[in-house]
Order: sequence, then structure tokens, then C-alpha cells
Amino acid sequence: MNKSDLQKVHRRIKPYIHRTPVLTSQLLNQISGVDLFFKCENFQKMGAFKMRGATNAILNLTKAQQSKGVVTHSSGNFAQALALAAKSVGVKAYIAMPENAPQVKKDAVLGYGGIIRECDSNTVAREAAADKIRQETGATFVHPSNDHDVIHGQGTAAIELLEDYPDLDYIFTPVGGGGLLAGTILAANAFSEVCKVIAGEPENADDAYRSLISGKIELNESANTIADGLRTNLGDRNFPIIKEYVEQIILVNEQDIIDAMKLIWERMKIIVEPSSAVAFAALLKHKDHIKGKKAGVILSGGNVDVSNLPF
Amino acid sequence: MNKSDLQKVHRRIKPYIHRTPVLTSQLLNQISGVDLFFKCENFQKMGAFKMRGATNAILNLTKAQQSKGVVTHSSGNFAQALALAAKSVGVKAYIAMPENAPQVKKDAVLGYGGIIRECDSNTVAREAAADKIRQETGATFVHPSNDHDVIHGQGTAAIELLEDYPDLDYIFTPVGGGGLLAGTILAANAFSEVCKVIAGEPENADDAYRSLISGKIELNESANTIADGLRTNLGDRNFPIIKEYVEQIILVNEQDIIDAMKLIWERMKIIVEPSSAVAFAALLKHKDHIKGKKAGVILSGGNVDVSNLPF
Repeated sequence: MNKSDLQKVHRRIKPYIHRTPVLTSQLLNQISGVDLFFKCENFQKMGAFKMRGATNAILNLTKAQQSKGVVTHSSGNFAQALALAAKSVGVKAYIAMPENAPQVKKDAVLGYGGIIRECDSNTVAREAAADKIRQETGATFVHPSNDHDVIHGQGTAAIELLEDYPDLDYIFTPVGGGGLLAGTILAANAFSEVCKVIAGEPENADDAYRSLISGKIELNESANTIADGLRTNLGDRNFPIIKEYVEQIILVNEQDIIDAMKLIWERMKIIVEPSSAVAFAALLKHKDHIKGKKAGVILSGGNVDVSNLPF
Repeated sequence: MNKSDLQKVHRRIKPYIHRTPVLTSQLLNQISGVDLFFKCENFQKMGAFKMRGATNAILNLTKAQQSKGVVTHSSGNFAQALALAAKSVGVKAYIAMPENAPQVKKDAVLGYGGIIRECDSNTVAREAAADKIRQETGATFVHPSNDHDVIHGQGTAAIELLEDYPDLDYIFTPVGGGGLLAGTILAANAFSEVCKVIAGEPENADDAYRSLISGKIELNESANTIADGLRTNLGDRNFPIIKEYVEQIILVNEQDIIDAMKLIWERMKIIVEPSSAVAFAALLKHKDHIKGKKAGVILSGGNVDVSNLPF
């Protein structure tokens, strides 16, 4: 996707999203030896970058499609994002959610006006439930990460970051389903001649790392990581982009993630979720290779249960 | 103190402090029915507004005084603020700290280049220790809150807030030692025709509230509040300002403070300390009286032990 197409995406969703601030920290620059620019998607509407992709997907539908609503299956940030984006545009959102999903997540979706259909918690049951809704209502299915409109929408965070700081050498993102990473790559390629994209991934859910080595989409047999947003697998729409252009995927262990999260909380006084800390943990692990460089870090979100912290 | 004098203070300290951002939140506006403008001193250098007053006090010394350093007694944010401000200006800072103060606080002072002298933890011992340092070194004593230069420095947060949002109807601050409240009042009086200042205070350390009623400085017999920055008493330099001009002091209980703190953390995704939450808790308690008005809230700091939270 070229620069003007991505600019069109950005213009389209702008009225519905926050232009989030970019924060800097002298202390974290000192600790890392890198000039850091944190793109604060934890301050995005509903608390995560997923608002961008969800909004773009809905706005790209025809009026006829919009009148029948959208549907997805998710128990995480994307469920809330689709519900809120749909509400902003005036469209119905149906969410297939596992019946054992935490009440607080169900309440958040309901609070944004989403319509919940409960289902069993396994992937097959979720997909079947979403498909049933689609058939019954005519709603359009929107995948949380493996959808071109979603990928392009997620890329707008990097567009804003590069508009603010055009001379970044690197952008670090987490990788889970691959939507944010693929979108960031497209934006970096279109808006910078030099900026490379590096992803952080939990060791305990290292499907993207292994996919890059094998050249085909690998799955996680288990995904026991605190970074709950990153337990999902890549898809056939985002993997080709990632495979061709990602500079590197860096694995981090659970303690790396917790330490990086605590460092951001304590030094920057902002709340980020573990998935955001994965990107920064990867940067810290890689810091000796990028000394003195300018690096953006996409802080993907801030939805975390503050009553139940890992430190 | 008139507007041009306060502007002079602001210009003097500007190179040494952050101009902190003002954040807004549609969700908290909805919850409160008030148009809210949060002045984020939790993002200030060393994590609290106290950096402003400490810097002003040091810059106002003569070169001869500066060459002998500054001294204070504090186990909290002011110890760190004076140490860092002194380091920025190139001056020595001696801090009398109770020997039983948490190591993390001692380390923070040492990290900023402060010179610690340990003493017993009661007020008499602290004052004696500070006085001994003063006699031995010739350093100038700087009180954390009952000092005109400190008061004027703390007022610069409200100056910036009113520069950004000149039509505020109210500014809410916490009140502990009274430096921030008195400085905010001076700034509001000088920079606005209409803006009134309201303070929040913990029920469990309600000395300022009682002082306002009795007309003389009252002390706390005990001060068992989570808002550890607000356990101190008013002084003879700040009380006259507070007595004459504060619109109201609103008491809040411990649960009010914890609830307000959690609300800010969860909804705004920023880390504030309990003392900051006191100002917002007071606003929430008072919200029906200021419906539809524009209110600034000074989030005084973000230095909190994230491993030991009240929720």
C-alpha cells in the first residue's frame, strides 16, 4: 500500500480516534543508550490501538453493509474496539464471547453498546458462533488482525509517530496476531526511507518467531504468557508482509516483560499493559546494537487489571 | 505577589523544570458532570510539583549562599526535589533523613546527588539535625512548604494551567504543608479574574480544615492517611494566604481517596500518588455544586510504590 492510500486511511479514521501523544524520558534514554519515542496508544480511545483498525474496517463498508452491522469473536481489546467504533459510526456490533470471559470484559463491551452472544471458549466454537451471527443477521465479519482494512488502520499509529519524528531509525512493536506489526511495516516503508521495524514476542508464545524461520505460519501449542494480547497466531493477510519486511523478531521471557512494564510504570508514570512492555523489553534486550539511534516504541495499550499486578 | 513577579519566578525556573501536559478525559467529564483539566505534575522531574519550589528557592540564593549549599529535613518528595534541583543548578544539598526511612527513598536522594545525614525520626530530632548541618556547613535551610520562594515556585503549575486554559472556574489542589495550595491561590488571583481555589484534605489529617475554622494553625495529633504527602501541618508563611483566599477545604475519607486514585489509573492510564487523588476525590464529592463548570485539578505527583497498592 502506498503513501497516499495510507494517508487516505488516516484521514478517514481521524475524526473517530485520538491523535495520541509521543512521550520521551531522559531516564529511559540513559538506561537504554537509545533516543526513545513512546507512541502512547494506551491513551487511545478504549485504551488500545485496536480502535484504529476496527474503525477503518467499519468505515470501509458500504452503507448497505453498515446497515446490517459487524461481527467478530474476541474476548480482548478488539471486542471493545469494534463495539466502540461501531457505536461511533452508528452501526451494530455483535461479539461472540466465551461464556467464561471475565465479567469486566463483558461489561466493557456492553458499555460500548456491543451485543454479546456467548459461546464455548475454544476457537472452533467461537468461529462457529460468529459465523452463525453472520448468517442470521447479514453482519460483516471483521477479523481482529487478519484483515487488510484492520492492518491499514493499525498502521496509522506509526504514520503519526513518523509525522512527529520523521528521522526514526527503528520502530518497535509487539507481535501477536500480526495486525499491528504488518500495519507498522507498511507505514514505515511508505513514510520513511530508513526506518526499520523490529518486533518483540513472548518466548512462551513464539509462533511469529518460528514462522519467520520456517517460512510458513506456525501455531502456538500453548501460550502461557502474561502478555494476554499476544497469544494469537499470524494470518495469511499479515504474514506475507511481516515475512518480507520485518527486520527482526526478538523473543523476551516473562521476567523481561514484567521488568520492562514496571520500568515504564515507575519512570514514565503511565499505565501500559504487558503486551506493550513486550516491545520495550525487546528494545532493552537489543539496546547494544542500536546505541545512539532514534527508536519509536508503540505502547499498544493500557487495559490492565490494576488490582492484579505481576509486581 | 503580583502577576509580573510571578511571571519572573516562572521564567527563572523554566529551564530546570518540565512544562507538564494538561490531560482531559471524556469519561471522567461524564462521571463528574464537570469539564476537567488535569495538570500532570506526576510527569514533572522527579515525579512531583515539589521540583518547582525547590528550584526557585535555590535560584533565589546569592552566589555566596549557593556555594555553601542547601539543607532540608524531609523523608518524602521534597528531599528528592531539593537534591535534584541542587544538582541541576550545581549546588550541594544536605538532607536530614530519619534513619528508618525506606531505603528506596534514601537511594533516590543519593541518586540525585544529595548528601544524607541520618537522624531519629521525630520532628525535634529532624529539625536539630538540619540545624546542625546548617551551622557546620553554612548551608541555607529550605523548608518544604513554609517558605515564600517555595510557595511561589509551586504556584507556577497553576500559572501554566491558566495559560493553557484561561477560563477555568476552579482549581482543585490537595493541602498538606500548604505550599502548593498557597502558591496556587497566588497564581489564580494574579492570572484570573474568576478562578477560585478549592482544596482537598484527608479526614485523617484535617489540620488545615480545622485551622480555617479556628483561625489559627492547628496540628494533627495523628495523621493515619494513605496520602503520605499530606500528613504535615501548615506554616505561618502559607496559612495567612490560605485563610484569606481559599474558597473551601473539602474533607475526604480513605476510601474516597482510594476510589479516586483507582478511577484516574484505570480511566486515564496514568499513575498518580494518593495525595493527587485527594484533590480529585474532593472534586467528586463537590461535583453537584459545580455542574458544567471548568475545573483544573493539580495532580501533584506520581511517586508511589507500584508493588504495594491499596487496590
